[in-house]
Amino acid sequence: MPVDVSNLSGGSLIVAWQLKDKNVLIVGGGDVAASRIENILVADAKITLIAPHEGLHPQTKEYIAATPRITYHDRVFAGAGDLEGVDMVLTAIDDVERSREIVALCRARRIPVNAADIPPSCDFYFGSQVKRLPLQIMISTNGKGPRLAHHIRTRIEDSLPQGVENAIERVGELRSKLRERAPGVGGELGKKRMRWMTDLCNAWDLDELSLLDDAAMKKLLDEGWENGQVPSPQDVLPGAKLRGEVALPFSLLVPTVVGFFAGVACTAVAVHRFSPRN
Amino acid sequence: MPVDVSNLSGGSLIVAWQLKDKNVLIVGGGDVAASRIENILVADAKITLIAPHEGLHPQTKEYIAATPRITYHDRVFAGAGDLEGVDMVLTAIDDVERSREIVALCRARRIPVNAADIPPSCDFYFGSQVKRLPLQIMISTNGKGPRLAHHIRTRIEDSLPQGVENAIERVGELRSKLRERAPGVGGELGKKRMRWMTDLCNAWDLDELSLLDDAAMKKLLDEGWENGQVPSPQDVLPGAKLRGEVALPFSLLVPTVVGFFAGVACTAVAVHRFSPRN
Repeated sequence: MPVDVSNLSGGSLIVAWQLKDKNVLIVGGGDVAASRIENILVADAKITLIAPHEGLHPQTKEYIAATPRITYHDRVFAGAGDLEGVDMVLTAIDDVERSREIVALCRARRIPVNAADIPPSCDFYFGSQVKRLPLQIMISTNGKGPRLAHHIRTRIEDSLPQGVENAIERVGELRSKLRERAPGVGGELGKKRMRWMTDLCNAWDLDELSLLDDAAMKKLLDEGWENGQVPSPQDVLPGAKLRGEVALPFSLLVPTVVGFFAGVACTAVAVHRFSPRN
Repeated sequence: MPVDVSNLSGGSLIVAWQLKDKNVLIVGGGDVAASRIENILVADAKITLIAPHEGLHPQTKEYIAATPRITYHDRVFAGAGDLEGVDMVLTAIDDVERSREIVALCRARRIPVNAADIPPSCDFYFGSQVKRLPLQIMISTNGKGPRLAHHIRTRIEDSLPQGVENAIERVGELRSKLRERAPGVGGELGKKRMRWMTDLCNAWDLDELSLLDDAAMKKLLDEGWENGQVPSPQDVLPGAKLRGEVALPFSLLVPTVVGFFAGVACTAVAVHRFSPRN
């Protein structure tokens, strides 16, 4: 069947931008700026914040006080000089004209820029986010319904298994250990590593992966990787609960029990009413 | 309570990059390139693909044949000249050294670049994606467990309500109509628009929003926006099902029924066994 490209349109390229030790300029200090600050700190960047003190949101003030990773200037944006050495710019000010001027300066310097509330001026949009680091999930409605993105975020949060971030952290450690044991970038070995990790993640569920400790990882690598196989969780985690032993989930248990007693009650009533002694 | 920034670390800045009518260069044509092509087409960009024909993945060939939005060159990357007028570069080749050379050329020109399989050389990472345009959801494990991101994606897909993309599309249309009726960027009016849309999205659920047609939107704006209130779905959608009338969800119905008949059966057996006639 030939590929259908007609429905491939109307979206964005959603990416995880890397900002470790990069310089991000935020112009403005209100509530939007406060939420931007959180997003940027999570990404391990350094922040320069330019905004008159009287306009700072309480949350913004708290961030400035809480971390040396924010350099704060109590003034308005002063022009191209403020863009020196800057890797990304976010404007969050009420002045649309000033915002557009900043965007134009950034464009000329090929600095990625987001101007709050002016979508056509943005190189990139933000969305609603679930953060369970190292897991991050971003929900974008491509500008159609930011509020709906919040609703969807809540649903997604409810659907994530507890401890999912631990499972990811453990798998990340195992990947590092595997790369130490079988080093090198790309090529056949890289593909073999990737296949083994994929097989493992398909064979184990998230709860099992979250139980991996140093000893279990060593056993997995010694007995699994070295022999080109993926041991079962039961082989590696002696105390772990076997799958299939898992109890009936609570969400199924309640209606089952309710139904059971309703059945008992109805039958008892029926028997009592229609029994020959009555 | 002072803000705690100690746990704000180890992540990325997840953004929806805007590529409409931009030029994206993809170097390489294998399976990774094929998945990149899909992501870039979704974002409405133009693609230049440079890769020798003999290395093309069947899916890549299909994309080239299917759309004029891909300009294909049957050759290897030829140097800085290939970066002329390019807004973003993705490499997906097995040659790590060549990939790093391309990355260095991009860096010098401030062109955002992703080099498949060489995380330290990437300005941005890709993740696992749910696409129900205009809804896009991206799951990143920040490089710790790409395979787990796929598992989580499946869970998220299962948790999304049917027709969620229709609800978003309708809300997007309503936002456009509202902006036509009360135009202007930023300021008090912008905030009033945003508040009204937020109130609406909080008061209506996704199923109800997906039923908005032109007539219903007009009624919402005439009777709601103009009077500074949010009408209920029942006022605007005469045929719509009231909330609260919704039937017992299937997931609860099955265990309830099973429990009921188990209760009936157990009671019947007990009555039969212990009845005085036996």
